[in-house]
Amino acid sequence: MKKLFVIKIGGDIIDDEKQLSSFLNDFSSISENKILVHGGGKIATEIGKQLGIEPKMIEGRRITDEATLRVVQMVYGGLINKNIVAQLQSRNCNAIGLTGADGNSILAKKRPVKDVDYGFVGDVELVETQIFLSLLNTGLSPVLAPLTHDGKGQILNTNADTIASAVASALSKLYEVNLIYCFEKSGVLKNADDENSVIEKINSKEHEKLKRDGVISQGMIPKLNNAFDALKQGVRIVVICHAKDLKKATLNKKAGTRLEK
Amino acid sequence: MKKLFVIKIGGDIIDDEKQLSSFLNDFSSISENKILVHGGGKIATEIGKQLGIEPKMIEGRRITDEATLRVVQMVYGGLINKNIVAQLQSRNCNAIGLTGADGNSILAKKRPVKDVDYGFVGDVELVETQIFLSLLNTGLSPVLAPLTHDGKGQILNTNADTIASAVASALSKLYEVNLIYCFEKSGVLKNADDENSVIEKINSKEHEKLKRDGVISQGMIPKLNNAFDALKQGVRIVVICHAKDLKKATLNKKAGTRLEK
Repeated sequence: MKKLFVIKIGGDIIDDEKQLSSFLNDFSSISENKILVHGGGKIATEIGKQLGIEPKMIEGRRITDEATLRVVQMVYGGLINKNIVAQLQSRNCNAIGLTGADGNSILAKKRPVKDVDYGFVGDVELVETQIFLSLLNTGLSPVLAPLTHDGKGQILNTNADTIASAVASALSKLYEVNLIYCFEKSGVLKNADDENSVIEKINSKEHEKLKRDGVISQGMIPKLNNAFDALKQGVRIVVICHAKDLKKATLNKKAGTRLEK
Repeated sequence: MKKLFVIKIGGDIIDDEKQLSSFLNDFSSISENKILVHGGGKIATEIGKQLGIEPKMIEGRRITDEATLRVVQMVYGGLINKNIVAQLQSRNCNAIGLTGADGNSILAKKRPVKDVDYGFVGDVELVETQIFLSLLNTGLSPVLAPLTHDGKGQILNTNADTIASAVASALSKLYEVNLIYCFEKSGVLKNADDENSVIEKINSKEHEKLKRDGVISQGMIPKLNNAFDALKQGVRIVVICHAKDLKKATLNKKAGTRLEK
Protein backbone atom coordinates (compact mmCIF):
# COMPACT_ATOMS: atom_id res chain seq x y z
CA MET A 1 0.00 0.00 0.00
CA LYS A 2 1.14 3.55 -0.74
CA LYS A 3 1.82 5.91 2.12
CA LEU A 4 -0.56 8.80 2.86
CA PHE A 5 -0.08 11.59 5.38
CA VAL A 6 -3.19 13.17 6.85
CA ILE A 7 -2.03 16.28 8.68
CA LYS A 8 -4.14 18.54 10.84
CA ILE A 9 -3.00 22.09 11.58
CA GLY A 10 -4.52 23.94 14.52
CA GLY A 11 -5.95 27.43 14.70
CA ASP A 12 -3.21 28.95 16.86
CA ILE A 13 -0.62 28.24 14.15
CA ILE A 14 -2.94 29.55 11.42
CA ASP A 15 -3.22 32.82 13.35
CA ASP A 16 0.58 33.24 13.30
CA GLU A 17 1.82 34.18 9.81
CA LYS A 18 5.43 33.16 10.41
CA GLN A 19 4.69 29.81 11.99
CA LEU A 20 2.10 29.04 9.31
CA SER A 21 4.56 29.88 6.54
CA SER A 22 7.22 27.62 8.01
CA PHE A 23 4.67 24.83 8.50
CA LEU A 24 3.54 25.14 4.87
CA ASN A 25 7.17 24.86 3.73
CA ASP A 26 7.46 21.57 5.59
CA PHE A 27 4.09 20.33 4.34
CA SER A 28 5.04 21.13 0.72
CA SER A 29 8.30 19.21 1.01
CA ILE A 30 6.51 15.92 1.72
CA SER A 31 6.88 13.84 -1.45
CA GLU A 32 4.26 11.22 -0.56
CA ASN A 33 0.49 11.59 -0.91
CA LYS A 34 -0.79 14.15 1.57
CA ILE A 35 -3.96 15.78 2.84
CA LEU A 36 -4.10 18.88 5.02
CA VAL A 37 -6.99 19.58 7.40
CA HIS A 38 -7.12 23.04 8.90
CA GLY A 39 -8.90 24.45 11.91
CA GLY A 40 -10.40 27.85 12.33
CA GLY A 41 -8.38 30.15 14.52
CA LYS A 42 -9.44 33.39 16.09
CA ILE A 43 -10.19 35.11 12.76
CA ALA A 44 -13.73 33.72 12.66
CA THR A 45 -14.44 35.07 16.14
CA GLU A 46 -12.92 38.46 15.25
CA ILE A 47 -14.85 38.84 12.00
CA GLY A 48 -18.01 37.59 13.71
CA LYS A 49 -17.59 40.29 16.36
CA GLN A 50 -17.08 42.96 13.69
CA LEU A 51 -20.37 41.78 12.17
CA GLY A 52 -22.03 42.03 15.59
CA ILE A 53 -22.13 38.30 16.28
CA GLU A 54 -20.94 37.30 19.76
CA PRO A 55 -19.38 33.84 19.95
CA LYS A 56 -21.46 31.34 21.93
CA MET A 57 -19.57 28.36 23.33
CA ILE A 58 -20.71 25.35 25.36
CA GLU A 59 -17.97 23.04 26.71
CA GLY A 60 -15.42 24.46 24.29
CA ARG A 61 -17.70 23.88 21.32
CA ARG A 62 -19.00 26.72 19.25
CA ILE A 63 -22.77 26.98 18.97
CA THR A 64 -23.42 27.52 15.29
CA ASP A 65 -26.55 29.55 14.70
CA GLU A 66 -27.39 30.74 11.18
CA ALA A 67 -25.37 33.96 11.46
CA THR A 68 -22.37 32.11 12.90
CA LEU A 69 -22.54 29.51 10.13
CA ARG A 70 -22.32 32.29 7.53
CA VAL A 71 -19.21 33.61 9.27
CA VAL A 72 -17.41 30.27 9.60
CA GLN A 73 -18.37 29.34 6.05
CA MET A 74 -16.83 32.60 4.83
CA VAL A 75 -13.75 32.49 7.04
CA TYR A 76 -12.95 28.76 6.94
CA GLY A 77 -14.09 28.06 3.38
CA GLY A 78 -13.08 31.34 1.74
CA LEU A 79 -10.44 33.22 3.69
CA ILE A 80 -8.29 30.61 5.44
CA ASN A 81 -8.72 27.76 2.96
CA LYS A 82 -7.89 29.85 -0.10
CA ASN A 83 -4.96 31.60 1.60
CA ILE A 84 -3.46 28.22 2.46
CA VAL A 85 -4.10 26.85 -1.04
CA ALA A 86 -2.53 29.90 -2.71
CA GLN A 87 0.49 29.71 -0.41
CA LEU A 88 0.95 25.99 -1.09
CA GLN A 89 0.73 26.65 -4.85
CA SER A 90 3.55 29.19 -4.51
CA ARG A 91 5.59 26.36 -2.93
CA ASN A 92 4.94 24.04 -5.90
CA CYS A 93 2.46 21.97 -3.94
CA ASN A 94 -0.60 21.42 -6.14
CA ALA A 95 -3.23 21.98 -3.46
CA ILE A 96 -7.00 21.89 -3.93
CA GLY A 97 -9.29 23.31 -1.26
CA LEU A 98 -12.37 21.36 -0.27
CA THR A 99 -15.29 21.43 2.09
CA GLY A 100 -17.26 18.23 2.60
CA ALA A 101 -19.74 19.48 0.00
CA ASP A 102 -17.09 19.62 -2.73
CA GLY A 103 -17.11 16.35 -4.62
CA ASN A 104 -19.52 15.14 -1.91
CA SER A 105 -16.32 14.31 -0.02
CA ILE A 106 -17.70 14.32 3.54
CA LEU A 107 -21.35 13.77 4.32
CA ALA A 108 -22.52 14.70 7.81
CA LYS A 109 -25.71 14.73 9.86
CA LYS A 110 -26.88 17.78 11.74
CA ARG A 111 -26.32 16.96 15.41
CA PRO A 112 -29.65 16.01 17.02
CA VAL A 113 -30.85 18.38 19.74
CA LYS A 114 -30.64 16.75 23.17
CA ASP A 115 -29.62 18.86 26.17
CA VAL A 116 -27.84 21.35 23.94
CA ASP A 117 -28.81 22.65 20.50
CA TYR A 118 -25.48 23.02 18.75
CA GLY A 119 -27.17 24.51 15.69
CA PHE A 120 -25.61 23.88 12.30
CA VAL A 121 -23.01 21.42 13.54
CA GLY A 122 -22.44 18.23 11.58
CA ASP A 123 -21.32 14.81 12.82
CA VAL A 124 -19.47 12.93 10.08
CA GLU A 125 -21.47 10.10 8.53
CA LEU A 126 -19.51 9.13 5.45
CA VAL A 127 -16.16 9.93 3.86
CA GLU A 128 -16.30 9.40 0.09
CA THR A 129 -12.93 7.70 -0.42
CA GLN A 130 -13.25 7.63 -4.21
CA ILE A 131 -12.99 11.41 -4.62
CA PHE A 132 -9.85 11.55 -2.44
CA LEU A 133 -8.35 8.67 -4.42
CA SER A 134 -9.07 10.47 -7.71
CA LEU A 135 -7.60 13.76 -6.55
CA LEU A 136 -4.51 12.15 -5.00
CA ASN A 137 -3.95 10.07 -8.16
CA THR A 138 -4.10 13.31 -10.18
CA GLY A 139 -1.19 14.58 -8.06
CA LEU A 140 -3.31 16.96 -6.03
CA SER A 141 -3.09 17.58 -2.28
CA PRO A 142 -6.57 18.15 -0.80
CA VAL A 143 -6.81 20.95 1.79
CA LEU A 144 -9.90 20.43 3.92
CA ALA A 145 -11.79 23.22 5.67
CA PRO A 146 -13.72 22.18 8.81
CA LEU A 147 -17.04 22.25 6.95
CA THR A 148 -19.24 19.38 5.78
CA HIS A 149 -22.70 19.10 4.22
CA ASP A 150 -25.86 17.08 4.81
CA GLY A 151 -26.55 16.17 1.19
CA LYS A 152 -29.74 18.23 1.30
CA GLY A 153 -28.13 21.58 0.52
CA GLN A 154 -27.00 22.54 4.00
CA ILE A 155 -23.38 23.32 4.90
CA LEU A 156 -22.47 22.24 8.46
CA ASN A 157 -19.69 23.23 10.86
CA THR A 158 -17.57 20.22 11.83
CA ASN A 159 -14.63 19.95 14.20
CA ALA A 160 -11.33 19.76 12.28
CA ASP A 161 -9.80 17.08 14.55
CA THR A 162 -12.81 14.88 13.86
CA ILE A 163 -12.52 15.46 10.11
CA ALA A 164 -8.83 14.52 10.19
CA SER A 165 -9.58 11.34 12.12
CA ALA A 166 -12.55 10.35 9.92
CA VAL A 167 -10.67 10.96 6.65
CA ALA A 168 -7.56 9.13 7.91
CA SER A 169 -9.70 6.18 9.03
CA ALA A 170 -11.67 5.90 5.80
CA LEU A 171 -8.53 6.09 3.67
CA SER A 172 -6.67 3.50 5.74
CA LYS A 173 -8.40 0.86 3.59
CA LEU A 174 -6.54 2.24 0.54
CA TYR A 175 -3.31 3.65 1.98
CA GLU A 176 -0.85 3.15 4.80
CA VAL A 177 -2.01 6.25 6.69
CA ASN A 178 0.02 8.36 9.11
CA LEU A 179 -2.13 10.86 10.96
CA ILE A 180 -0.32 13.86 12.44
CA TYR A 181 -1.97 16.48 14.62
CA CYS A 182 0.13 19.67 14.58
CA PHE A 183 -0.58 22.40 17.07
CA GLU A 184 1.06 25.00 19.33
CA LYS A 185 2.20 22.58 22.06
CA SER A 186 5.06 20.07 22.07
CA GLY A 187 2.75 17.06 22.39
CA VAL A 188 0.57 15.47 25.04
CA LEU A 189 1.89 16.91 28.29
CA LYS A 190 1.98 15.26 31.71
CA ASN A 191 1.76 18.74 33.14
CA ALA A 192 -0.23 21.17 30.99
CA ASP A 193 2.02 24.07 32.07
CA ASP A 194 5.31 22.35 31.33
CA GLU A 195 6.34 22.06 27.67
CA ASN A 196 9.10 19.68 28.75
CA SER A 197 6.69 17.12 30.16
CA VAL A 198 5.81 15.55 26.79
CA ILE A 199 4.66 11.94 27.04
CA GLU A 200 6.61 10.17 24.27
CA LYS A 201 4.32 7.22 23.70
CA ILE A 202 0.79 6.28 24.71
CA ASN A 203 -0.98 3.04 23.88
CA SER A 204 -4.71 2.51 24.29
CA LYS A 205 -4.30 0.85 27.69
CA GLU A 206 -2.20 3.77 28.99
CA HIS A 207 -4.71 6.16 27.42
CA GLU A 208 -7.49 4.71 29.58
CA LYS A 209 -5.31 4.99 32.68
CA LEU A 210 -4.32 8.60 31.91
CA LYS A 211 -7.99 9.50 31.52
CA ARG A 212 -8.91 7.71 34.78
CA ASP A 213 -6.10 9.49 36.61
CA GLY A 214 -7.17 12.86 35.22
CA VAL A 215 -3.71 13.52 33.72
CA ILE A 216 -5.06 14.52 30.32
CA SER A 217 -6.25 18.09 30.21
CA GLN A 218 -9.71 19.10 29.10
CA GLY A 219 -8.86 20.23 25.56
CA MET A 220 -6.79 17.13 24.85
CA ILE A 221 -9.52 14.58 25.64
CA PRO A 222 -11.49 14.75 22.36
CA LYS A 223 -8.23 14.95 20.36
CA LEU A 224 -6.95 11.73 21.94
CA ASN A 225 -10.31 10.01 21.58
CA ASN A 226 -10.30 10.90 17.88
CA ALA A 227 -6.74 9.64 17.54
CA PHE A 228 -7.40 6.27 19.20
CA ASP A 229 -10.57 5.88 17.11
CA ALA A 230 -8.41 6.31 14.01
CA LEU A 231 -5.93 3.67 15.22
CA LYS A 232 -8.79 1.25 15.82
CA GLN A 233 -10.02 1.90 12.26
CA GLY A 234 -6.69 0.96 10.73
CA VAL A 235 -4.57 4.13 10.77
CA ARG A 236 -0.94 2.99 11.24
CA ILE A 237 0.54 5.78 13.33
CA VAL A 238 -0.82 8.88 15.05
CA VAL A 239 1.53 11.63 16.20
CA ILE A 240 0.53 14.71 18.20
CA CYS A 241 3.27 17.35 17.98
CA HIS A 242 4.21 20.99 17.63
CA ALA A 243 3.76 22.36 14.10
CA LYS A 244 7.50 23.04 13.91
CA ASP A 245 8.17 19.30 14.35
CA LEU A 246 6.15 18.22 11.29
CA LYS A 247 9.24 17.30 9.30
CA LYS A 248 10.61 15.11 12.10
CA ALA A 249 7.20 13.45 12.45
CA THR A 250 6.95 12.65 8.73
CA LEU A 251 10.48 11.25 8.75
CA ASN A 252 9.51 9.02 11.68
CA LYS A 253 11.98 10.75 14.00
CA LYS A 254 11.26 11.54 17.65
CA ALA A 255 8.58 14.25 17.69
CA GLY A 256 5.81 14.97 20.16
CA THR A 257 3.65 12.10 21.34
CA ARG A 258 3.32 8.91 19.36
CA LEU A 259 0.10 6.98 19.82
CA GLU A 260 -0.10 3.23 19.39
CA LYS A 261 -2.92 0.72 19.35
CA MET B 1 -15.15 15.84 -29.52
CA LYS B 2 -17.35 15.67 -26.45
CA LYS B 3 -19.67 18.52 -25.66
CA LEU B 4 -18.97 20.88 -22.76
CA PHE B 5 -21.20 23.62 -21.41
CA VAL B 6 -19.52 26.58 -19.71
CA ILE B 7 -22.28 28.52 -17.99
CA LYS B 8 -21.95 31.86 -16.26
CA ILE B 9 -24.57 32.96 -13.72
CA GLY B 10 -24.79 36.63 -12.79
CA GLY B 11 -25.00 38.26 -9.40
CA ASP B 12 -28.60 39.45 -9.65
CA ILE B 13 -29.82 35.86 -9.97
CA ILE B 14 -27.55 34.72 -7.13
CA ASP B 15 -29.15 37.36 -4.90
CA ASP B 16 -32.63 35.91 -5.56
CA GLU B 17 -33.10 32.59 -3.74
CA LYS B 18 -36.02 31.40 -5.87
CA GLN B 19 -34.48 32.23 -9.24
CA LEU B 20 -31.16 30.70 -8.16
CA SER B 21 -32.86 27.50 -7.04
CA SER B 22 -34.69 27.15 -10.32
CA PHE B 23 -31.49 27.88 -12.27
CA LEU B 24 -29.62 25.21 -10.29
CA ASN B 25 -32.36 22.69 -11.11
CA ASP B 26 -31.81 23.35 -14.80
CA PHE B 27 -28.03 23.28 -14.48
CA SER B 28 -28.18 19.94 -12.64
CA SER B 29 -30.34 18.39 -15.34
CA ILE B 30 -27.65 18.88 -18.01
CA SER B 31 -26.27 15.41 -18.73
CA GLU B 32 -23.19 16.57 -20.65
CA ASN B 33 -19.92 17.86 -19.15
CA LYS B 34 -20.52 21.20 -17.48
CA ILE B 35 -18.75 24.01 -15.65
CA LEU B 36 -20.48 26.78 -13.72
CA VAL B 37 -18.90 30.22 -13.22
CA HIS B 38 -20.61 32.48 -10.71
CA GLY B 39 -20.44 36.20 -10.12
CA GLY B 40 -20.63 38.04 -6.86
CA GLY B 41 -23.91 39.78 -6.25
CA LYS B 42 -24.71 42.41 -3.70
CA ILE B 43 -23.82 40.22 -0.72
CA ALA B 44 -20.15 41.19 -0.90
CA THR B 45 -21.03 44.88 -0.85
CA GLU B 46 -23.45 44.36 2.06
CA ILE B 47 -21.01 42.36 4.16
CA GLY B 48 -18.23 44.81 3.29
CA LYS B 49 -20.41 47.67 4.53
CA GLN B 50 -21.16 45.81 7.76
CA LEU B 51 -17.41 45.47 8.21
CA GLY B 52 -17.00 49.21 7.60
CA ILE B 53 -15.62 48.90 4.06
CA GLU B 54 -17.21 51.24 1.54
CA PRO B 55 -17.27 49.88 -2.02
CA LYS B 56 -15.03 51.81 -4.39
CA MET B 57 -15.88 51.55 -8.08
CA ILE B 58 -14.25 53.03 -11.18
CA GLU B 59 -16.12 52.53 -14.49
CA GLY B 60 -18.24 49.75 -13.01
CA ARG B 61 -15.19 47.87 -11.76
CA ARG B 62 -14.60 47.28 -8.11
CA ILE B 63 -11.32 48.61 -6.74
CA THR B 64 -9.94 45.77 -4.68
CA ASP B 65 -7.82 47.02 -1.80
CA GLU B 66 -6.60 44.57 0.84
CA ALA B 67 -9.72 44.85 3.01
CA THR B 68 -12.00 44.44 -0.01
CA LEU B 69 -10.05 41.39 -1.19
CA ARG B 70 -10.62 39.74 2.19
CA VAL B 71 -14.35 40.36 1.83
CA VAL B 72 -14.69 39.08 -1.74
CA GLN B 73 -12.48 36.10 -0.92
CA MET B 74 -14.80 35.24 1.98
CA VAL B 75 -18.06 35.94 0.17
CA TYR B 76 -17.24 34.58 -3.30
CA GLY B 77 -14.98 31.71 -2.22
CA GLY B 78 -16.71 30.71 1.01
CA LEU B 79 -20.31 31.86 1.18
CA ILE B 80 -21.63 31.86 -2.40
CA ASN B 81 -19.42 29.13 -3.83
CA LYS B 82 -20.13 26.63 -1.05
CA ASN B 83 -23.86 27.41 -0.98
CA ILE B 84 -24.06 26.70 -4.70
CA VAL B 85 -21.98 23.52 -4.38
CA ALA B 86 -24.10 22.20 -1.49
CA GLN B 87 -27.30 22.98 -3.39
CA LEU B 88 -26.03 21.24 -6.51
CA GLN B 89 -25.06 18.19 -4.43
CA SER B 90 -28.63 18.01 -3.12
CA ARG B 91 -29.72 17.85 -6.80
CA ASN B 92 -27.39 14.90 -7.50
CA CYS B 93 -24.95 17.08 -9.38
CA ASN B 94 -21.43 16.22 -8.18
CA ALA B 95 -20.11 19.78 -7.98
CA ILE B 96 -16.66 20.83 -6.82
CA GLY B 97 -15.97 24.47 -5.95
CA LEU B 98 -12.77 26.07 -7.19
CA THR B 99 -10.92 29.33 -7.23
CA GLY B 100 -8.06 29.75 -9.69
CA ALA B 101 -5.67 28.77 -6.90
CA ASP B 102 -7.28 25.35 -6.46
CA GLY B 103 -5.41 22.86 -8.61
CA ASN B 104 -3.60 25.89 -10.06
CA SER B 105 -6.59 26.06 -12.40
CA ILE B 106 -6.38 29.75 -13.37
CA LEU B 107 -3.19 31.75 -13.14
CA ALA B 108 -3.51 35.53 -13.33
CA LYS B 109 -1.32 38.61 -13.19
CA LYS B 110 -2.04 41.53 -10.91
CA ARG B 111 -3.22 44.33 -13.20
CA PRO B 112 -0.39 46.82 -13.74
CA VAL B 113 -1.02 50.31 -12.37
CA LYS B 114 -1.53 52.85 -15.17
CA ASP B 115 -4.10 55.62 -14.73
CA VAL B 116 -6.01 53.58 -12.18
CA ASP B 117 -4.75 51.26 -9.44
CA TYR B 118 -7.32 48.49 -9.40
CA GLY B 119 -5.58 46.86 -6.44
CA PHE B 120 -5.73 43.08 -6.13
CA VAL B 121 -7.37 42.50 -9.50
CA GLY B 122 -6.05 39.72 -11.71
CA ASP B 123 -6.00 39.48 -15.49
CA VAL B 124 -6.12 35.85 -16.62
CA GLU B 125 -2.81 34.56 -17.96
CA LEU B 126 -3.27 30.80 -18.17
CA VAL B 127 -6.08 28.28 -17.79
CA GLU B 128 -4.69 24.88 -16.77
CA THR B 129 -6.81 22.65 -19.01
CA GLN B 130 -5.45 19.42 -17.52
CA ILE B 131 -7.06 19.94 -14.11
CA PHE B 132 -10.46 20.64 -15.71
CA LEU B 133 -10.07 17.56 -17.89
CA SER B 134 -9.25 15.39 -14.85
CA LEU B 135 -12.16 16.69 -12.80
CA LEU B 136 -14.64 16.41 -15.67
CA ASN B 137 -13.44 12.87 -16.44
CA THR B 138 -14.03 11.99 -12.78
CA GLY B 139 -17.66 13.00 -13.27
CA LEU B 140 -17.32 16.26 -11.38
CA SER B 141 -18.80 19.63 -12.34
CA PRO B 142 -16.42 22.47 -11.44
CA VAL B 143 -18.04 25.56 -9.90
CA LEU B 144 -15.73 28.54 -10.31
CA ALA B 145 -15.69 31.55 -8.01
CA PRO B 146 -14.46 34.82 -9.60
CA LEU B 147 -11.07 34.52 -7.89
CA THR B 148 -7.68 33.64 -9.36
CA HIS B 149 -4.11 33.57 -8.04
CA ASP B 150 -0.73 34.83 -9.15
CA GLY B 151 1.26 31.68 -8.35
CA LYS B 152 3.19 33.59 -5.70
CA GLY B 153 0.69 33.11 -2.91
CA GLN B 154 -1.68 35.98 -3.71
CA ILE B 155 -5.39 35.53 -4.39
CA LEU B 156 -6.75 38.02 -6.95
CA ASN B 157 -10.24 39.28 -7.79
CA THR B 158 -11.17 38.51 -11.40
CA ASN B 159 -14.29 39.35 -13.38
CA ALA B 160 -16.57 36.29 -13.72
CA ASP B 161 -17.47 36.99 -17.38
CA THR B 162 -13.77 37.02 -18.22
CA ILE B 163 -13.19 33.77 -16.35
CA ALA B 164 -16.07 32.11 -18.23
CA SER B 165 -14.69 33.28 -21.57
CA ALA B 166 -11.08 32.29 -20.75
CA VAL B 167 -12.05 28.82 -19.49
CA ALA B 168 -14.38 28.20 -22.45
CA SER B 169 -11.66 29.30 -24.89
CA ALA B 170 -8.93 27.16 -23.34
CA LEU B 171 -11.15 24.08 -23.23
CA SER B 172 -12.33 24.49 -26.83
CA LYS B 173 -9.16 22.60 -27.84
CA LEU B 174 -10.48 19.55 -25.97
CA TYR B 175 -14.25 19.87 -26.18
CA GLU B 176 -16.99 21.24 -28.37
CA VAL B 177 -17.75 24.17 -26.06
CA ASN B 178 -21.04 26.02 -25.71
CA LEU B 179 -20.67 29.17 -23.61
CA ILE B 180 -23.88 30.51 -22.05
CA TYR B 181 -24.09 33.77 -20.13
CA CYS B 182 -27.17 33.72 -17.89
CA PHE B 183 -28.36 36.90 -16.24
CA GLU B 184 -31.45 38.90 -15.28
CA LYS B 185 -32.24 40.21 -18.77
CA SER B 186 -33.74 38.44 -21.79
CA GLY B 187 -30.61 38.86 -23.91
CA VAL B 188 -28.81 41.67 -25.73
CA LEU B 189 -31.45 44.36 -26.06
CA LYS B 190 -31.84 46.92 -28.86
CA ASN B 191 -33.44 49.18 -26.28
CA ALA B 192 -32.06 48.70 -22.76
CA ASP B 193 -35.49 49.49 -21.25
CA ASP B 194 -37.46 47.07 -23.39
CA GLU B 195 -37.23 43.37 -22.53
CA ASN B 196 -39.00 42.60 -25.82
CA SER B 197 -36.26 44.15 -27.94
CA VAL B 198 -33.93 41.13 -27.80
CA ILE B 199 -31.54 40.87 -30.74
CA GLU B 200 -31.78 37.21 -31.78
CA LYS B 201 -28.43 36.86 -33.51
CA ILE B 202 -25.27 38.91 -33.75
CA ASN B 203 -22.21 38.07 -35.80
CA SER B 204 -18.85 39.78 -35.38
CA LYS B 205 -19.51 42.21 -38.25
CA GLU B 206 -22.86 43.26 -36.75
CA HIS B 207 -21.17 43.47 -33.37
CA GLU B 208 -18.76 46.13 -34.67
CA LYS B 209 -21.65 48.05 -36.22
CA LEU B 210 -23.76 47.90 -33.03
CA LYS B 211 -20.79 49.27 -31.08
CA ARG B 212 -20.20 52.04 -33.64
CA ASP B 213 -23.88 52.98 -33.55
CA GLY B 214 -23.88 53.04 -29.74
CA VAL B 215 -26.75 50.53 -29.58
CA ILE B 216 -25.01 48.31 -27.02
CA SER B 217 -25.37 49.59 -23.50
CA GLN B 218 -22.43 50.27 -21.21
CA GLY B 219 -22.63 47.10 -19.10
CA MET B 220 -23.01 44.86 -22.13
CA ILE B 221 -19.83 46.00 -23.92
CA PRO B 222 -17.26 43.93 -21.96
CA LYS B 223 -19.62 40.92 -21.93
CA LEU B 224 -19.89 40.98 -25.72
CA ASN B 225 -16.17 41.56 -26.17
CA ASN B 226 -15.51 38.52 -23.96
CA ALA B 227 -18.01 36.49 -25.95
CA PHE B 228 -16.55 37.34 -29.36
CA ASP B 229 -13.05 36.67 -28.01
CA ALA B 230 -14.23 33.19 -27.05
CA LEU B 231 -15.69 32.58 -30.53
CA LYS B 232 -12.39 33.63 -32.09
CA GLN B 233 -10.58 31.15 -29.82
CA GLY B 234 -12.69 28.23 -30.98
CA VAL B 235 -15.82 28.23 -28.81
CA ARG B 236 -18.67 26.91 -30.99
CA ILE B 237 -21.65 28.88 -29.75
CA VAL B 238 -22.18 31.74 -27.31
CA VAL B 239 -25.64 32.51 -25.97
CA ILE B 240 -26.56 35.46 -23.75
CA CYS B 241 -29.95 34.85 -22.12
CA HIS B 242 -32.12 35.12 -19.04
CA ALA B 243 -31.27 32.54 -16.34
CA LYS B 244 -34.77 31.06 -16.71
CA ASP B 245 -33.99 30.20 -20.34
CA LEU B 246 -30.94 28.04 -19.58
CA LYS B 247 -32.72 24.82 -20.48
CA LYS B 248 -33.82 26.18 -23.87
CA ALA B 249 -30.29 27.40 -24.52
CA THR B 250 -28.71 24.03 -23.72
CA LEU B 251 -31.24 22.26 -25.96
CA ASN B 252 -30.34 24.66 -28.78
CA LYS B 253 -33.83 26.18 -28.83
CA LYS B 254 -34.54 29.87 -29.33
CA ALA B 255 -33.29 31.68 -26.21
CA GLY B 256 -31.83 35.14 -25.75
CA THR B 257 -29.13 36.31 -28.12
CA ARG B 258 -27.03 33.87 -30.09
CA LEU B 259 -23.57 35.08 -31.08
CA GLU B 260 -21.80 33.83 -34.15
CA LYS B 261 -18.34 34.26 -35.58
